Amino acid sequence: MKRATFLSCAFALTLLTSFTFIMQKKKIVFFGDSITEAAVKPGGYITRIGELASKENMSSKYDLVGAGISGNKIYDLYLRLESDVLSVNPDVVIIFVGVNDVWHKRTHGTGTDPDKFEKFYSAVIRKLQEKNIKVVLCTPAAIGEKTDFSNELDGDLNQYSNIIRSLAKKSNVPVIDLRQTFLDYNKKFNTDNKEAGILTSDRVHLNEKGNQVVADEMWKIIKSL
Amino acid sequence: MKRATFLSCAFALTLLTSFTFIMQKKKIVFFGDSITEAAVKPGGYITRIGELASKENMSSKYDLVGAGISGNKIYDLYLRLESDVLSVNPDVVIIFVGVNDVWHKRTHGTGTDPDKFEKFYSAVIRKLQEKNIKVVLCTPAAIGEKTDFSNELDGDLNQYSNIIRSLAKKSNVPVIDLRQTFLDYNKKFNTDNKEAGILTSDRVHLNEKGNQVVADEMWKIIKSL
Amino acid sequence: MKRATFLSCAFALTLLTSFTFIMQKKKIVFFGDSITEAAVKPGGYITRIGELASKENMSSKYDLVGAGISGNKIYDLYLRLESDVLSVNPDVVIIFVGVNDVWHKRTHGTGTDPDKFEKFYSAVIRKLQEKNIKVVLCTPAAIGEKTDFSNELDGDLNQYSNIIRSLAKKSNVPVIDLRQTFLDYNKKFNTDNKEAGILTSDRVHLNEKGNQVVADEMWKIIKSL
Amino acid sequence: MKRATFLSCAFALTLLTSFTFIMQKKKIVFFGDSITEAAVKPGGYITRIGELASKENMSSKYDLVGAGISGNKIYDLYLRLESDVLSVNPDVVIIFVGVNDVWHKRTHGTGTDPDKFEKFYSAVIRKLQEKNIKVVLCTPAAIGEKTDFSNELDGDLNQYSNIIRSLAKKSNVPVIDLRQTFLDYNKKFNTDNKEAGILTSDRVHLNEKGNQVVADEMWKIIKSL
Repeated sequence: MKRATFLSCAFALTLLTSFTFIMQKKKIVFFGDSITEAAVKPGGYITRIGELASKENMSSKYDLVGAGISGNKIYDLYLRLESDVLSVNPDVVIIFVGVNDVWHKRTHGTGTDPDKFEKFYSAVIRKLQEKNIKVVLCTPAAIGEKTDFSNELDGDLNQYSNIIRSLAKKSNVPVIDLRQTFLDYNKKFNTDNKEAGILTSDRVHLNEKGNQVVADEMWKIIKSL
Repeated sequence: MKRATFLSCAFALTLLTSFTFIMQKKKIVFFGDSITEAAVKPGGYITRIGELASKENMSSKYDLVGAGISGNKIYDLYLRLESDVLSVNPDVVIIFVGVNDVWHKRTHGTGTDPDKFEKFYSAVIRKLQEKNIKVVLCTPAAIGEKTDFSNELDGDLNQYSNIIRSLAKKSNVPVIDLRQTFLDYNKKFNTDNKEAGILTSDRVHLNEKGNQVVADEMWKIIKSL
Repeated sequence: MKRATFLSCAFALTLLTSFTFIMQKKKIVFFGDSITEAAVKPGGYITRIGELASKENMSSKYDLVGAGISGNKIYDLYLRLESDVLSVNPDVVIIFVGVNDVWHKRTHGTGTDPDKFEKFYSAVIRKLQEKNIKVVLCTPAAIGEKTDFSNELDGDLNQYSNIIRSLAKKSNVPVIDLRQTFLDYNKKFNTDNKEAGILTSDRVHLNEKGNQVVADEMWKIIKSL
Repeated sequence: MKRATFLSCAFALTLLTSFTFIMQKKKIVFFGDSITEAAVKPGGYITRIGELASKENMSSKYDLVGAGISGNKIYDLYLRLESDVLSVNPDVVIIFVGVNDVWHKRTHGTGTDPDKFEKFYSAVIRKLQEKNIKVVLCTPAAIGEKTDFSNELDGDLNQYSNIIRSLAKKSNVPVIDLRQTFLDYNKKFNTDNKEAGILTSDRVHLNEKGNQVVADEMWKIIKSL
């Protein structure tokens, strides 16, 4: 009988462990543009977050899912929210968008009006929160790394970053302020006022260091949720 | 008793007539941009449609509602579909949009990508059809009236008109091809190849003749529904 | 005979005085866009420079000529340099341009590439210097007065201001750094981070205070030449 | 003595021939953008004009010089007219430009205003004619090959082609109307209304057939000069 008890206890323990394990594994979707599309590759920021989790023996706690598509603006995220995000039942969605909303004004004539940016962004947040999904916002890091605000689109990128910061406050969700992080880093290390090569390869897309900086910032928030 | 019967019959008839009358009054919402915003004023195309209905003793059959807002693009219509259109329970919605989706590429850098134009337009049609509302599409009439396709934005406007024609076919709804109507009219009457003054006052917004031509085209379809 | 001598002396003196007077009157051409076009009106910055000269009893020393045309970019100045500036034989030309080179990228798709901006600007300076005309450059003051570099076009305007500062250095001519002046002033007095109303009426064109600030800055340089 | 006479006659003849040969060799500069930059490569339109000349035994009559630089607009041609064209003393200059003046409105915000396009183009023609250089103009062939004028930039490209046609008339110089040639060709052979692949590889740059068509059109004019 003792043995039977022991066995059933062990079984219960296993069950409990599995159950706990399953319950605690958080599915985190990274929802964004080409920067996020590249982030699941070796060296990408999502891959690096996985490595950071691993180092702290927390791999089993997180399911990290990339949902980035090149060229996406906020209304592209809105249009594929159901099919690409809600459909996988995430616990947390980290939204990292904004570069193309500004950039495409110059390169395609199809950027996003600031007020529409805010409306579609609000709608995405609301739809996620309605499903009890935790939302984390990010400001767009850079289109050019010069630190004297003489990158062509700095003004507009600052404007849209302000919109995102204000949305985070209104929606009471955390914001990872990558724009500020990148500026601070460049002020320290980009003393020649170069437009690329510090955290980006081409003014926009992340190089190794850039991916690590983004991973570090995101990991801090992810652990805290 | 006979008289009483007669009276009650007459009363019933009156009731029936009123009832029929109420039932048959179609609410038609005109959903668009500044062209439609101006259309409810004296001389505007919606006002003129009312006059055409009146002439044919059909005023009582139609409830004409303007829902145009200056500067609107297809995704603005999408964003205010609930509040401005579905909320008033229309029988028919005539969508007249596209000029700003093209024009704002040039003037604000915030036009609409062709594929997003199609996606948001499809979504608007679908949401209306889900409520059993009849949908009628219009092609954007003009940004410039020159007839040799040398108006600056003719190429793009033709592209978006093709998208609308194709959407109408796919969704099996009528299309009022104002772009073709305006071109045909100008080929006949704009023999000096002027860029404005024939059907528009400023290349885009309708003058008296333009409002009448639009009213005539729309009235033909409205009667047929 | 004495009297005749006296008379001829007096006459000679008068002649001499007139001659001296004519020689010392400096013709200063203000060469620019709509901001300069408005500057000759009552309250405009050129009018105010005249008033400053008057207060210091130096009106007779300067001939102030406005040569501003609305919408002008650097290559418009280049194209009308002969007809509007060289033709009037100025001693000094104050070039105040750049806002439209940046702004028209957004509003017309026809801004000026940074490298072409530099080339045409250099050509204008060179052609003036070949005629021994003194040249003074100005940086473009503002398109929006917010002080956190979140005005839409701040990045680009900073870039073009850097080009002008660098041209001034290369050509060894003074630069009136209105962009810096306006920023400093706004940091002090625009504590609500408003986009207009401090030194501009509409983000770009000068209000009374703006005209005075520009007049003050220019007057300092004009006196020093 | 007879032999001496014969010899000296032969010598004179040789001299005469050389002289004639030198005098008649026409230097033709092709002045343009990336389309012309590629034209000197094997298969390019300038190379093909050389082959056409060869077939008709006229190689020795022409010196064909490519002067195309990628991304050039009319004012780039203006800025490098001295260094790249006048410096080589051409007899004929064939100007083939306009695509980027239109295209860069969309892709960089730095296209050329129509009135400035005309001014700089006129200035280039005038400077060439002042040196007694024959000038030939070309209209820009295509940005997209669809034949129903639904290529995004068709309207603007038609507008600039009209300006070029009108400049040719005013300056009394021949125009090679490549835009019309390409349209006619596509109406015949591009029956599926494809946007590329008929005469261009990518909507703008010439494929083999496109280079041949341009070579044929130019050769007709070159021979006639």
